[in-house]
Amino acid sequence: MKKYQLMAPGPTPVPTEVLLAMARPMIHHRTPEYAALFTEVRAGLKRLVQTRQEVLTPACTGTGAMEAAVANTLSAGDRVIVVNAGAFAQRWLAIAKAYKLQIVELAAPHGETVPAERVAEALRTHRDVKAVLVQHSESSTGVLHDVRAYAQVTAGTDAILIVDAVSSLGIADLQMDAWAIDVVVSASQKGLMLPPGLGIVALGDKAWQAAARASSPKFYLDLTEERTYAARNEARFTPAVSIMVGLREVLRMIEAEGLANVFRRHDRLSRATRAGAEALGLRLFVKATPSPALTAVEVPAGVDADRVVEGFATAHNITIDGGRGPTKGKIFRIGHMGYAAETDVIIALAALEQVLAELGQPVDFGASVRAAQKVFVEKS
Amino acid sequence: MKKYQLMAPGPTPVPTEVLLAMARPMIHHRTPEYAALFTEVRAGLKRLVQTRQEVLTPACTGTGAMEAAVANTLSAGDRVIVVNAGAFAQRWLAIAKAYKLQIVELAAPHGETVPAERVAEALRTHRDVKAVLVQHSESSTGVLHDVRAYAQVTAGTDAILIVDAVSSLGIADLQMDAWAIDVVVSASQKGLMLPPGLGIVALGDKAWQAAARASSPKFYLDLTEERTYAARNEARFTPAVSIMVGLREVLRMIEAEGLANVFRRHDRLSRATRAGAEALGLRLFVKATPSPALTAVEVPAGVDADRVVEGFATAHNITIDGGRGPTKGKIFRIGHMGYAAETDVIIALAALEQVLAELGQPVDFGASVRAAQKVFVEKS
Repeated sequence: MKKYQLMAPGPTPVPTEVLLAMARPMIHHRTPEYAALFTEVRAGLKRLVQTRQEVLTPACTGTGAMEAAVANTLSAGDRVIVVNAGAFAQRWLAIAKAYKLQIVELAAPHGETVPAERVAEALRTHRDVKAVLVQHSESSTGVLHDVRAYAQVTAGTDAILIVDAVSSLGIADLQMDAWAIDVVVSASQKGLMLPPGLGIVALGDKAWQAAARASSPKFYLDLTEERTYAARNEARFTPAVSIMVGLREVLRMIEAEGLANVFRRHDRLSRATRAGAEALGLRLFVKATPSPALTAVEVPAGVDADRVVEGFATAHNITIDGGRGPTKGKIFRIGHMGYAAETDVIIALAALEQVLAELGQPVDFGASVRAAQKVFVEKS
Repeated sequence: MKKYQLMAPGPTPVPTEVLLAMARPMIHHRTPEYAALFTEVRAGLKRLVQTRQEVLTPACTGTGAMEAAVANTLSAGDRVIVVNAGAFAQRWLAIAKAYKLQIVELAAPHGETVPAERVAEALRTHRDVKAVLVQHSESSTGVLHDVRAYAQVTAGTDAILIVDAVSSLGIADLQMDAWAIDVVVSASQKGLMLPPGLGIVALGDKAWQAAARASSPKFYLDLTEERTYAARNEARFTPAVSIMVGLREVLRMIEAEGLANVFRRHDRLSRATRAGAEALGLRLFVKATPSPALTAVEVPAGVDADRVVEGFATAHNITIDGGRGPTKGKIFRIGHMGYAAETDVIIALAALEQVLAELGQPVDFGASVRAAQKVFVEKS
């Protein structure tokens, strides 16, 4: 028997308690029972996103939530800045193209980030920029972009800052209101440890003003309409009822742990994973601030990273993920987000040692686990 | 103890076996396990929709699937015919307005339908019509529109027929290819007895040709892209994994029963419910072909239908639904779709008798149950 372990950078494992909560008999969404659930979820999401705004929950995945942010705040012909340092930034580019926006692309090599000063400079050059689109955590490279600094740069301009927090919400600190982030977008299947299928979107006042002017067509993802219903604690359309039921459980778990502790746990898990990989002589792919959601690791010359992913799957029944596009075969990515604990990091590193040895690499068995343990015993 | 019964016209109850299948540990969507699931689901959906086309499964609810049909096949300024005889037709109108389409509205009173000849006439008058938008089953009134006849009318023209089959797929016979329906739209939470959160969309050749010309912006719901991935048995974006897992179970259940038997069961349940209501001297709201998905019933003068709905909830722990808009307070609606059996109809009718009596109406106890039983013992 090999116990199955899902350690990809999303979807993440769903706690058994949450799975069983979602397995309760279906309820109708226009009942007092659902209204009570929605009240609790709405309040919990505000605390999670650290905002006083309504946090909307369209039934879609993260990409749908990203498109909702664009379709609701921008119009064809609008100029936007896209901070591009990975595959999910390319999704912003694709959405912007679909909506016929003019794009100013600020690119950085994968593994790097774009300094806020470059964004500021682009905003000075292009006075008509309506929005800056960026990831908080770029899952394809393992970089955390400094969205707080980007917000300081956009705050003094007419541009709104739209942040993809799909793999950072409930993982890395993100203070929507205090940092003056205009739009936060996320989804259910990462830090929220739920099945995929629920989008999360919150708009600040500046973004709602942009929404009032935006003419891009939208209906299902019309957030202005969605907010009107949410303010009455009503579902506009049939919601993703079972995931909303699960979300209530997850929000209770997060509140019980304490949001600050949730962030500290992810930070500790990611530092331990990085320390473990480095103890094996491997190089981290990330060159900038690492995301606490996942760790992207380079393989030694002559090793195909996809064979590492395959080794995790076949010999250990653990799902991790490889690189995509330019990093395919060059990196593997281990997720430690959401329902992730120290034991998961230990398991992943021990498996990594065995997989590398099986691929003919010299391995000092136990070295990575030891490095992780040293992180875990630190007082922090 | 009152056993909870969900008998609204959707969401419908989810079988316990399906709930438990969905409660299995989360799997990743880029694994051999998911690929096998997707293969089976894709084949099963083709049989269910009675088409050789790919049946696409975006993570959204029925309204998202409706919008996908419009955004993918039409462009701003295009003229469309909307068959409007209820609340869900009004959703077509709202989507068409959001996408800046020119609308030819063919209205019928609620409870009625629009004869195919009126559609034919409108197509002759407006030669530039690009699409006809219609419900198959209009849940707000309980009418089944004759989409087969509409398809015969559109087949000889350049217009495509887009059918909202949200409350008819897996309930009433709908032969996409044989009847020459161009687009079929549905969702997970009605006949498919799953939680809400999965849209279903299939396009025929004529609709794919329209899609190649359509310029409405879309990204998340871009069906052309979605089809490319599906044809490789790959998920384009993170799918609604847990509902896809449930869908495999549901498709197995439907195949075990036999699709023709599933349709016969719904027909029998709806005839029995109508017979039961009439045996109590109540009038059916539907004046045209009744939908086998639900039964809409008028209340006697002086009775508020919302009190009937409330009586079901409080005294019997049964969720049914009332009217919306113009029918609010005038009708109640009992669903008998998806995971619905003869026992459910018996329970609903017995409760109805008790609720009416409690509201001061003269009731011949047992009369509605007897009428239903007579339907059930018929050889058909």
